[in-house]
Amino acid sequence: MTFSLWFDTGGGGLPGRANRLQSGVRYRDEDSFTAALRRRLPSRGRVRLGIGDDAAVLAGGTVLTVDGYRQGVHFDLHYLSWREVGARCACAALSDVVAMGARPDALFVTLALPPAARRRDVTALYRGLDSVCARLGCEIAGGDTIAGRELLLALAATGRTQCPLLRAGARPGDGLYLTGQAGAAETGRLRLARDPAASRRNPAVSRHVRPRPRLEAMLALRPRITALIDTSDGIAGDARRLARASEVRIIIAPEHLPTLTATRTLCRRSGRDLTEFILTAGEDHELLFCARGPVPGRAGAVPVTRIGRVERGRGLWLERAGRRQRLTLRGYDHLRP
Amino acid sequence: MTFSLWFDTGGGGLPGRANRLQSGVRYRDEDSFTAALRRRLPSRGRVRLGIGDDAAVLAGGTVLTVDGYRQGVHFDLHYLSWREVGARCACAALSDVVAMGARPDALFVTLALPPAARRRDVTALYRGLDSVCARLGCEIAGGDTIAGRELLLALAATGRTQCPLLRAGARPGDGLYLTGQAGAAETGRLRLARDPAASRRNPAVSRHVRPRPRLEAMLALRPRITALIDTSDGIAGDARRLARASEVRIIIAPEHLPTLTATRTLCRRSGRDLTEFILTAGEDHELLFCARGPVPGRAGAVPVTRIGRVERGRGLWLERAGRRQRLTLRGYDHLRP
Repeated sequence: MTFSLWFDTGGGGLPGRANRLQSGVRYRDEDSFTAALRRRLPSRGRVRLGIGDDAAVLAGGTVLTVDGYRQGVHFDLHYLSWREVGARCACAALSDVVAMGARPDALFVTLALPPAARRRDVTALYRGLDSVCARLGCEIAGGDTIAGRELLLALAATGRTQCPLLRAGARPGDGLYLTGQAGAAETGRLRLARDPAASRRNPAVSRHVRPRPRLEAMLALRPRITALIDTSDGIAGDARRLARASEVRIIIAPEHLPTLTATRTLCRRSGRDLTEFILTAGEDHELLFCARGPVPGRAGAVPVTRIGRVERGRGLWLERAGRRQRLTLRGYDHLRP
Repeated sequence: MTFSLWFDTGGGGLPGRANRLQSGVRYRDEDSFTAALRRRLPSRGRVRLGIGDDAAVLAGGTVLTVDGYRQGVHFDLHYLSWREVGARCACAALSDVVAMGARPDALFVTLALPPAARRRDVTALYRGLDSVCARLGCEIAGGDTIAGRELLLALAATGRTQCPLLRAGARPGDGLYLTGQAGAAETGRLRLARDPAASRRNPAVSRHVRPRPRLEAMLALRPRITALIDTSDGIAGDARRLARASEVRIIIAPEHLPTLTATRTLCRRSGRDLTEFILTAGEDHELLFCARGPVPGRAGAVPVTRIGRVERGRGLWLERAGRRQRLTLRGYDHLRP
């Protein structure tokens, strides 16, 4: 998701039922797996931007990202319908295109169908995929379906822009901003895991079940944005990637992180640390960006919140009541033991 | 493969260990599955060519195809190394780009890795994928890796052309041509299934293990080609798709089908009908095309053979010794019961 450009080794995922790459394939974390592959595979000058962002940029300004999703890891049919699975996966893939500053054009769907799949399941899955495309004006333009032991989707999403918004580009003095609320989708997921029939109108449930890529917000904010990523592996991990790509220090003021009442209630009742929860919760698919100059507090219907700032230096820091601490929390990572 | 543009429901595959979409998902065949989905999913004008060929064509001339491959269905690690699996899958995907008349630019790799996979297996797989890219001057430009129960690859391949070569375009009076030999890859696969250590220098084994998309041949023949497809599901199925897309009748003269000695020997010894074998054997990834005017007998190192012709009418016919019969043989189809 967030990190498809290069080897997103499964970004996102359900923290509650983590399914890591165990077995003989051991890497320190996703970024080191990515880096190892990247060193081995030569560039041959055919791609305008090939490595290190949410998506690749081909000649002519075509943006392309690929992502894999698996039952039990990236979605759960125990509390999602096939249609909802389609919508979630389409949003995750198309959100990476939006996070490059591009308008989505097409979605390509490779599907591995388990023996238990019925014809109406496949139809519902495609309806869900197409529902997100319809909202963005793009279309499903191709695919492949094979039989498999378990349900797996591999999506390729394309878009176009002559001027991609990259992770690198943040400069000291920029503010750090977030659209929507932090941790909303994970709050919704935990609610659904307890009660699969939970109302889809609940804002947290809705963000998990029917997330929408923030295309309008991106287009509205675009002139101000210096660096952009979408939140899929948790704000901590995604902000760290912005800091690393831009070679700057990013400071987050956790009391400014916007949250739903449902998220605060969840943390209070379950004894979770609110800051830790919202910094590591994945799958929100909000825009996390650095910007210079005034940024409006809303972009259409979507709230935009300043949650920190950019300084000279390195790394990711938390600042509360004037005291700083280095942030070592990470988002969800398939490869970390 | 051949038919990725729209919903290739698993084109290619190992006929010996067919793994069809059983379960509740029943369609008459792949083309009807494709047609059913196609009717449901609206076009929104974002894609230049979205349905009905080897790959889609996006704005700006970007060609894009996606394909899924699964252990035991599309390749077999019992007699292929991880590196060879990578090379075979990369060839299949990139061959679809070549079959659009485009130069391949980039390959994107979504991988589901089973628990038994080791780090060196992954490295070897990527080496195999990149070996084909290196031959074509293109590059691996992104990917995603997740854990899965079985090894699955989903590849997206891109290229560019301002003037795609389509399946539709054949006209009465054209000749029908094939590069290389028919049935070579399947001959090699059967040899390997018997003897996994069979020499990789054997021409049939080599076509199965290290197939190469026919890029140079396509570029050389391009000015003559009126309609083009790559052979992945067997000549019968692929020629039928040419005939249907071009709304013409195609007549194949089976005695003209070029074959390796190894293929003829295999059929004689095993009591197989040679014509049936070569018309249904998949995974050759040769160019099957219609052309007007003189066509050279070689394109670089690759033999080019006239195997039939195009007439007014419909359907696919076989002509031997002046007698015609309608050809009902089909290639490999994941969805046919």
